[in-house]
Amino acid sequence: MKKVPVGVSARHIHLSVDHIAALFGAGYELKVLKDLSQPGQFAAEETVAVIGPKGKFDKVRILGPARGKTQLEVSRTDAFSLGVNPPVRESGNIAGTPGIKLVGPAGEVEIEEGVIVAARHIHFHTEDAARWGIQDKQKLTVRVGGERAVIFEEVVARVSDQYALDMHIDTDEANAAGVKNGDEAEILS
Amino acid sequence: MKKVPVGVSARHIHLSVDHIAALFGAGYELKVLKDLSQPGQFAAEETVAVIGPKGKFDKVRILGPARGKTQLEVSRTDAFSLGVNPPVRESGNIAGTPGIKLVGPAGEVEIEEGVIVAARHIHFHTEDAARWGIQDKQKLTVRVGGERAVIFEEVVARVSDQYALDMHIDTDEANAAGVKNGDEAEILS
Repeated sequence: MKKVPVGVSARHIHLSVDHIAALFGAGYELKVLKDLSQPGQFAAEETVAVIGPKGKFDKVRILGPARGKTQLEVSRTDAFSLGVNPPVRESGNIAGTPGIKLVGPAGEVEIEEGVIVAARHIHFHTEDAARWGIQDKQKLTVRVGGERAVIFEEVVARVSDQYALDMHIDTDEANAAGVKNGDEAEILS
Repeated sequence: MKKVPVGVSARHIHLSVDHIAALFGAGYELKVLKDLSQPGQFAAEETVAVIGPKGKFDKVRILGPARGKTQLEVSRTDAFSLGVNPPVRESGNIAGTPGIKLVGPAGEVEIEEGVIVAARHIHFHTEDAARWGIQDKQKLTVRVGGERAVIFEEVVARVSDQYALDMHIDTDEANAAGVKNGDEAEILS
């Protein structure tokens, strides 16, 4: 049985160094609130406001460290609230996605692209993937049990020796399947 | 292939005659905005405000006609916003579920129970069910395709000669599976 812990991703944002400076001030460094399951990744103490054409979220958690490009990850439900129509994309693949307005304590930024609904995925350490015969980018079928049991198809495998085993789904997916952080999923194929 | 059209249920409320009177005035009759897929059921022109411990929705659509008991159906995402923790239940089975405050133009009501997350289900006309060998209350496994393809287990069959063939899922489920009103699902077993 290929068992994987589930991590539920609430809406969050990754910021570029330039956007951290624009929103929080030149040279500002994010403070670590909590380490995440992936080594080196953390939830920052800081949040930003995200303003869409139809709605806004006052406090969207920043995940650090800084990235090359700013990327806002929302659920489809969040997207309807904001009034944007982002595609389902893998992290980092933001070409042609909608932009949005971000507001921080030191300024605001209108990003031209970067809003996505994250494609569900599983992070595998290279050794986990090798043991189970799973390749990077492979599409997997994964079941979560319970009173709202669901089998997710189109789950992207992401393999790296920088990763720890964890399945990432968004709040719509978690709520539809009745799962919460730390529950277990099973890779069927 | 057992193909079924999908209907996505946004948050909505069914009201008892007494609660219609309390919220809209004695003898008030709901006005039909739009007929629904199930014969005799309709979306009303009227909405109510729903006030939870943590949040509120100003305009929750009333579905008519009046029912024996008032029942508010929300997604798990909605429930978090309101600050209530309703169970997943079949429609009508509201014993022991949370209550909530409702506000209408003529008054307000604090219901003691009636908030549920609706169990996903398929309405079958008796003839559809007989043709496919499906029994009332049977739990089905149903697939929806696409870039967020999902197989839903625990889908409740509801069979009546008053029903029209339609699969009802909530907005979390629809968003997790990337489906919209009128898309097709396939009953696998």
